[in-house]
Amino acid sequence: MDKVKTVVGIDIGGTNTIFGFVDRSGNILAEDQIMTAHYDEPEVYVAALYEKIMITAQKTGRELEILGFGIGAPMGNINKGTIEYPADMPWKGIIPLADIFARHTTLPVIVTNDANAAAVGEMIYGGAKGMKNFVVITLGTGLGSGFVVDGKLVYGHDGFAGEIGHTVIRPGASNRDCGCGRKGCLETYVSATGLKRTVLKIMADRLDDSELRKHSFEELNSVMIYEAARRGDPVALEAFEHTGAMLGFKLADVVAHTNPEAIFLFGGLALAKELIFEPAKKHMEENLLYIYRDKVKLLPSELSTQNAAVLGASSLVWSSLEADGA
Amino acid sequence: MDKVKTVVGIDIGGTNTIFGFVDRSGNILAEDQIMTAHYDEPEVYVAALYEKIMITAQKTGRELEILGFGIGAPMGNINKGTIEYPADMPWKGIIPLADIFARHTTLPVIVTNDANAAAVGEMIYGGAKGMKNFVVITLGTGLGSGFVVDGKLVYGHDGFAGEIGHTVIRPGASNRDCGCGRKGCLETYVSATGLKRTVLKIMADRLDDSELRKHSFEELNSVMIYEAARRGDPVALEAFEHTGAMLGFKLADVVAHTNPEAIFLFGGLALAKELIFEPAKKHMEENLLYIYRDKVKLLPSELSTQNAAVLGASSLVWSSLEADGA
Repeated sequence: MDKVKTVVGIDIGGTNTIFGFVDRSGNILAEDQIMTAHYDEPEVYVAALYEKIMITAQKTGRELEILGFGIGAPMGNINKGTIEYPADMPWKGIIPLADIFARHTTLPVIVTNDANAAAVGEMIYGGAKGMKNFVVITLGTGLGSGFVVDGKLVYGHDGFAGEIGHTVIRPGASNRDCGCGRKGCLETYVSATGLKRTVLKIMADRLDDSELRKHSFEELNSVMIYEAARRGDPVALEAFEHTGAMLGFKLADVVAHTNPEAIFLFGGLALAKELIFEPAKKHMEENLLYIYRDKVKLLPSELSTQNAAVLGASSLVWSSLEADGA
Repeated sequence: MDKVKTVVGIDIGGTNTIFGFVDRSGNILAEDQIMTAHYDEPEVYVAALYEKIMITAQKTGRELEILGFGIGAPMGNINKGTIEYPADMPWKGIIPLADIFARHTTLPVIVTNDANAAAVGEMIYGGAKGMKNFVVITLGTGLGSGFVVDGKLVYGHDGFAGEIGHTVIRPGASNRDCGCGRKGCLETYVSATGLKRTVLKIMADRLDDSELRKHSFEELNSVMIYEAARRGDPVALEAFEHTGAMLGFKLADVVAHTNPEAIFLFGGLALAKELIFEPAKKHMEENLLYIYRDKVKLLPSELSTQNAAVLGASSLVWSSLEADGA
């Protein structure tokens, strides 16, 4: 029996690290995880992770040919194979993750952030197959972005291209605090957390009844706001409208930089479908320079949200192998 | 005697079309022009231009080997070789410029806009030699931009990447009208015209004496404002400070898209040196996400302003020939 060619996709989060063996079509042949938070030392963490990966490969009972390791991590730097000053991680400073991995394997190890991984995943397995110029926006707790130009992920000179969640959309000292230390960043408005903050702002400003008034800020989440909006709750509806409008305004700006064929929305908020897509599309078109109007597609990601991080991470290796003509 | 390898750089403006024969080092061996505005028909215009180019080549008395034609024009579309809906031109709609040229020559003809041409010119002849990721901002009557990623000019899906002069920097109906039909675009603040508008705004708001109060809006130009600022005129100084601040704010946003190594400022306003560079650098750094701080160089273009448009246009052909391995 032929060996199955796979790559290992690894999604490093502050709590868990999930990995899977992914074939070229995006099928996950096996998946498991370890607790990131258990390991104070990155060297010990990588050794434990590598061992678990090898054990999981054996357990499949199939002959897997592993072609490389793709890693998505917050503040992952694709040029250097490092994680740099991540928040919410047990490790501080600059962690040379690819180098630590290289003590265990001679196969390619590629590190990048989640949004870049999602962009390459969309190109390799998802809706951007065959597209040369597109952008993926990830809408989770924060907002990430990955730019593909001429069929290649944009890395940037320092490996940190595509951090538009931290562009200032509302300048001025009175605007929302961002975790990055500044004010008015896009992700303080357009993200699951931004949506919650907008709900509170609207409840402060309006007198409308709302089922959301029963919940504390800590209890509230974007699924509750989505369900309230589906039931016609005026506060929830206005919050989605406002969030989509801010997103659309910014997307017009994104288009003027790299003129993509399509923009894909990925993650929890994107699942709210027309509640987010309609205002986003409307405000994007209104704010586009005339030469771009009615040309740029605004699409939902075709990666399944559940496995997207592992798929995205694995896609980096396929993309790299194919660029090398392998 | 060996033939001298040259390309023809052509800068199409609404009034004049200037062209020159440029060698690989950026020397202009001969230069001449025709009046764009004299030709109602693009076919007649191209025939006249082509004839004038050939006559000029003969007049040099040298044996020139022409390798191609590079054309910079407002709304030039590099994917299609067209000029699309240009303002201030004798022709309307979509003009298939490269196709019309191809009736006269089988050599490569590359069309793009002035800012993209300036970006490639910076890479081929100027301060971006050896750089893989950088941005050029052209500050003239308007504001243009050209993005280079991984050593290549970003075209975009429709050939219109890099129109950041038309990103909305100040949302809201009360903001400055832009020629594109919208309000609050970057170039209404950051450009020679934007600087003039800012001078008027400051004269409206402040009571300071200023030599600029003697001049009408039509009389004012950026050189007068520059000279007033050098003499310590408070209105002129505040106008430069404000213009540089707006530019710096937007550059932080640009960095978060493609993470360039450097941003080059080109054109009349860039000649104001520290009057524009100091506030731009300060506000760029203040608005950058921490991972980008103190890393991105803000530099003056090294192309001479006088010949830059012809140089930039010619550089497209050199760049293309070298990408093809010629």
